[in-house]
Amino acid sequence: MMTEGKRKVEVCFSPAMFADFRNDDAVVVIVDILRATSAIVTAFMNGARHIIPVATLDEALEYKKKGYLVAAERDGIVRDFADFGNSPYNFHREIIEGKDIVYSTTNGTHCIMLAQNSFRVLIGAYLNFSALVEHILQAERDLLILCAGWKNKFNLEDSLYAGALAEAVLKNNRYITLCDSTFASMDLWKLAKPDMMAYIEKAAQRHRLKKNKLDDVIEYCHTLNLTSMIPALKNDHLTLVENI
Amino acid sequence: MMTEGKRKVEVCFSPAMFADFRNDDAVVVIVDILRATSAIVTAFMNGARHIIPVATLDEALEYKKKGYLVAAERDGIVRDFADFGNSPYNFHREIIEGKDIVYSTTNGTHCIMLAQNSFRVLIGAYLNFSALVEHILQAERDLLILCAGWKNKFNLEDSLYAGALAEAVLKNNRYITLCDSTFASMDLWKLAKPDMMAYIEKAAQRHRLKKNKLDDVIEYCHTLNLTSMIPALKNDHLTLVENI
Repeated sequence: MMTEGKRKVEVCFSPAMFADFRNDDAVVVIVDILRATSAIVTAFMNGARHIIPVATLDEALEYKKKGYLVAAERDGIVRDFADFGNSPYNFHREIIEGKDIVYSTTNGTHCIMLAQNSFRVLIGAYLNFSALVEHILQAERDLLILCAGWKNKFNLEDSLYAGALAEAVLKNNRYITLCDSTFASMDLWKLAKPDMMAYIEKAAQRHRLKKNKLDDVIEYCHTLNLTSMIPALKNDHLTLVENI
Repeated sequence: MMTEGKRKVEVCFSPAMFADFRNDDAVVVIVDILRATSAIVTAFMNGARHIIPVATLDEALEYKKKGYLVAAERDGIVRDFADFGNSPYNFHREIIEGKDIVYSTTNGTHCIMLAQNSFRVLIGAYLNFSALVEHILQAERDLLILCAGWKNKFNLEDSLYAGALAEAVLKNNRYITLCDSTFASMDLWKLAKPDMMAYIEKAAQRHRLKKNKLDDVIEYCHTLNLTSMIPALKNDHLTLVENI
């Protein structure tokens, strides 16, 4: 198999495995479909200026005291002091337009910080899928797809997205993969694709959201190409990729 | 879904994720199909008395100096000082019968040590598949299937086996799963099952073995039910499960 001169595609199923996949020359796409990365893309769609990811609730609280808008949840539940939780439906234009939002979630923000030394850190969702594929192909770098998972465990909805994204990028013959998790995620994506909602019915995160009556966003978070906006990490905050 | 009183089945795709799956009440099955767990089962089939897993090559070398038989490889290559590498074909009855073998491999032995505080640690292979399923069902404990993977990364051949084992155990209605990696591994297993050898052709480990001209064991390591022997951890060594 010709591998010389090709860019490689890899999928990391959990932040717990990131150290072994780390590739600072790569474009890293962070995936937390239910719901952090879908919510972040939506916040930019509704006019947010910057999003500042923070790892701990304490940091989020400090920002709140300074007057920032704060999105903070743990285990799917909005924290008392926060303006928003993790639902894309929270980010109304009238509240967030032109504003900076501090963001701390169970799984998603940790991944963004983990990957911060990479060539580029991008926020991936179905909502910005095709624009993201195009941007990745233009960057002509290795691609590492980092699934946020659930508390360091593998999850289905992020892995399916990883499969969809890997498949789309690998259609371009300048890219190659020898990565078992990439093969697995593409095969799972092929299985799920004909009826995504039925397939992810079995996903554990769906049951967690249902239990907390938060399952209304699942279909929205699996909607393709509502925007061409791509949030990207610049120093300590997320901005649109064209601004970095 | 009724979960009360049921035993749960979980699959951990990599030792890097073990801390988040750890369940000391569970039966843990270690899986390193290509080749450590297949080789360990084969060694018992050919009369080995005990197998002593050690994490480092230094420890293996110390045992060698004391006169033990030593199996030690890294990245598929036998180490100079060792009597065997990681191939099941190494363990000839005339050499190992009644003997203790010290064993250190790239991925497999590390997993055995990680899980040592569990209720029981069993060695899983296709070679002892049906016996293992029967033993697990008799234990009536939670089941955690720990894939050795490759250098902390997900691999296909271990995950497929995890899917096969989870599927077999979950046929018994005293067991349940809400674990996304269990669903994923069972779906991958269903895809692969009709033609395993064709499916794992894409697995990265197969390419590594091929490169090192070690691919002759792949079909052997995917052979079902050559034995009813189940190696299990007892203190610092592996013995047959009936001896613990």
